[in-house]
Amino acid sequence: MRQSQLFSRTTKNISSEVESPSHALLVRAGFIDQLSAGIFTFLPLGLRVLKKIENIVREEMEAVGGQEILMPVLAPRENWEKTGRYGAFDVLFKLKGRNKEYVLNPTHEEVISPLAGKVILSYKDLPLSVFQIQTKFRNEKRAKSGLLRTREFQMKDLYSFHTDEKDLTRYYERVAKSYDKIFKKCGVVAIKTLASGGTFSKYSHEYQVITDSGEDLIHVCSKCSLAYNDELKMKKCAECKGSLKQKKAVEVGNIFELKDKYSLPFDLKFKDRDGKEKPVLMGCYGLGISRLLAAIVETSHDSRGIIWPENVSPYDIHLISIGKSKADKIYAKLVKERRAVLYDDRDVSAGEKFADADLIGISERWVVSEKNKGKIEVKKRGRAKTKLVSY
Amino acid sequence: MRQSQLFSRTTKNISSEVESPSHALLVRAGFIDQLSAGIFTFLPLGLRVLKKIENIVREEMEAVGGQEILMPVLAPRENWEKTGRYGAFDVLFKLKGRNKEYVLNPTHEEVISPLAGKVILSYKDLPLSVFQIQTKFRNEKRAKSGLLRTREFQMKDLYSFHTDEKDLTRYYERVAKSYDKIFKKCGVVAIKTLASGGTFSKYSHEYQVITDSGEDLIHVCSKCSLAYNDELKMKKCAECKGSLKQKKAVEVGNIFELKDKYSLPFDLKFKDRDGKEKPVLMGCYGLGISRLLAAIVETSHDSRGIIWPENVSPYDIHLISIGKSKADKIYAKLVKERRAVLYDDRDVSAGEKFADADLIGISERWVVSEKNKGKIEVKKRGRAKTKLVSY
Repeated sequence: MRQSQLFSRTTKNISSEVESPSHALLVRAGFIDQLSAGIFTFLPLGLRVLKKIENIVREEMEAVGGQEILMPVLAPRENWEKTGRYGAFDVLFKLKGRNKEYVLNPTHEEVISPLAGKVILSYKDLPLSVFQIQTKFRNEKRAKSGLLRTREFQMKDLYSFHTDEKDLTRYYERVAKSYDKIFKKCGVVAIKTLASGGTFSKYSHEYQVITDSGEDLIHVCSKCSLAYNDELKMKKCAECKGSLKQKKAVEVGNIFELKDKYSLPFDLKFKDRDGKEKPVLMGCYGLGISRLLAAIVETSHDSRGIIWPENVSPYDIHLISIGKSKADKIYAKLVKERRAVLYDDRDVSAGEKFADADLIGISERWVVSEKNKGKIEVKKRGRAKTKLVSY
Repeated sequence: MRQSQLFSRTTKNISSEVESPSHALLVRAGFIDQLSAGIFTFLPLGLRVLKKIENIVREEMEAVGGQEILMPVLAPRENWEKTGRYGAFDVLFKLKGRNKEYVLNPTHEEVISPLAGKVILSYKDLPLSVFQIQTKFRNEKRAKSGLLRTREFQMKDLYSFHTDEKDLTRYYERVAKSYDKIFKKCGVVAIKTLASGGTFSKYSHEYQVITDSGEDLIHVCSKCSLAYNDELKMKKCAECKGSLKQKKAVEVGNIFELKDKYSLPFDLKFKDRDGKEKPVLMGCYGLGISRLLAAIVETSHDSRGIIWPENVSPYDIHLISIGKSKADKIYAKLVKERRAVLYDDRDVSAGEKFADADLIGISERWVVSEKNKGKIEVKKRGRAKTKLVSY
């Protein structure tokens, strides 16, 4: 992609409402554009990162046997009344159609549970897991910190279905491991944090990324690295009795043993080996794709801009032409080789190009100028070392 | 994918509300599930087809220089008031947030126009085109015929920006050609149909697929294959004076020269070579991805089920095991070779397997049974000829 034609601009000035480094950097570098409070457009650079994260998540969800589906944004009010959440869920967007009332789904238990009932008949159909990557909505009191707390966001939600608690727990642990892989691939540290399981489970787990922009408080054990959500009111580590250190964090994922919480209202049953009908046990596993994108920026930037981890960098190479150079030819060759390249072919100063490249944060930079006798200066973003390479 | 584990079921009985072959077949074969009138979940098979169509469309949009972005579902009421469409657009879903009113975007001129204004400054920034593949909404009086008329649907919308009418028209013709390619790749005949250009252009074009389930009437020239939308009230062909034949059809795409219709209310201007500020001229190019999926089924099925064109078939191969066969080994080999295979490993009769395979309509079928001395019976869906193949 030629940067001269890219549908975005880097900007120095941003609104005073910006409250977090990721918000400021993603707007300034031209990854996202705010349409309204908590509502953003993903510009080409932002969408490229979003899709890279999506693909990492998709691969891991398929590795745990998840089948991908796409559920609707709109759900009838009735589905949410059946679980009592129409009144109880405080950030539900509600709207009226012609003869029908809807909600904009902030999560999909109310859709997947009755749907699963059409497919699951007997124990032979279990275990089963399905997921989607989809747009979700929360009528937040206050949108905040760019993509960290929005009214419209991209999320992955996986739902699993089981005959018994043992099978549910086994699968829960398997997904927990796949989450570790996802965050590692995305180049971010997300701490598995023990949280309340609500009224129906002893515990659940959240995945928390430590950042001062976060709205959650977690307590991390100084000895064994276990962590506890603030709501658990732990004074010391339950495992090793180590002291806990309080940190601000943002939740990028959560996993929950729902058990029969949604199976019961939607009459989701299966016929077991003994011929008896029993409620299907469920698990749910959320991961905020767009929030994770911002969390990566929260933990991977410097004073000059974003430092994208290689696996989620919008392009593999930022090719920068300085003065009269043979960069055009190098760009053509890279394109022919199907490398993902952003080529700064703009008619601006070297200083402006370097400042923008630092801001945008593509993981590898190739600088082509007359001075290096035909060689290219290659540098990883965030590292000082450069090397001269022939290409 | 093992069919015994697939998250969908084929069904014989469907509701009496089903009004079109595509609706009946897509529900019966387990591609989609209705949550509410005009609101559907894409099950694994349906989502696979949807993504294949998306990728065909994406490739062609990139070939005409389109940059992919993702705009929000929610837009503030103000944006739609600025163009007068908040009151005028009769199928707009409207909703209230906490201190803010929104619409669910049925199209994105009200979002892209002000956004483009942040990027486009001078003639040097033009021409420019951006597109998205995204979920859209229409508060339809009556949802109808499955995916043919829904309240929530998948759409591709491309917007282009130009300095002058000549450049706009040149690009318009280029997109028209790319649409022809898309429909050809998807294995469907979509007739480029002259339609009214509204108040601001002489003509626009629709892409219409002939089917009795369609709600549009078009008039196709019997001599030169040009076609006219019913609203033009043509009695004979404007080109060749040939007689016109009336057909029912469904619109799967439309292309429009918007000119300055949206540039003016959003003050979208550029500085020209002569230093003067002029309004940017726009084109818009829609394509209904989920509707196209249904239109393909409308034109490609028989009494037994769907006949997917090869490029959009949910899987490349439907592997069917009859009796004691070595199908398990063949499946393992195909998976290793990364072929896209649906493997009917279910413990049901051969008759049921064949009936379901006909219904689902995967483009190629491999039947493995004891009788063919280790060879596989290969058959294209919709054709009678079979051949025995070693693998």
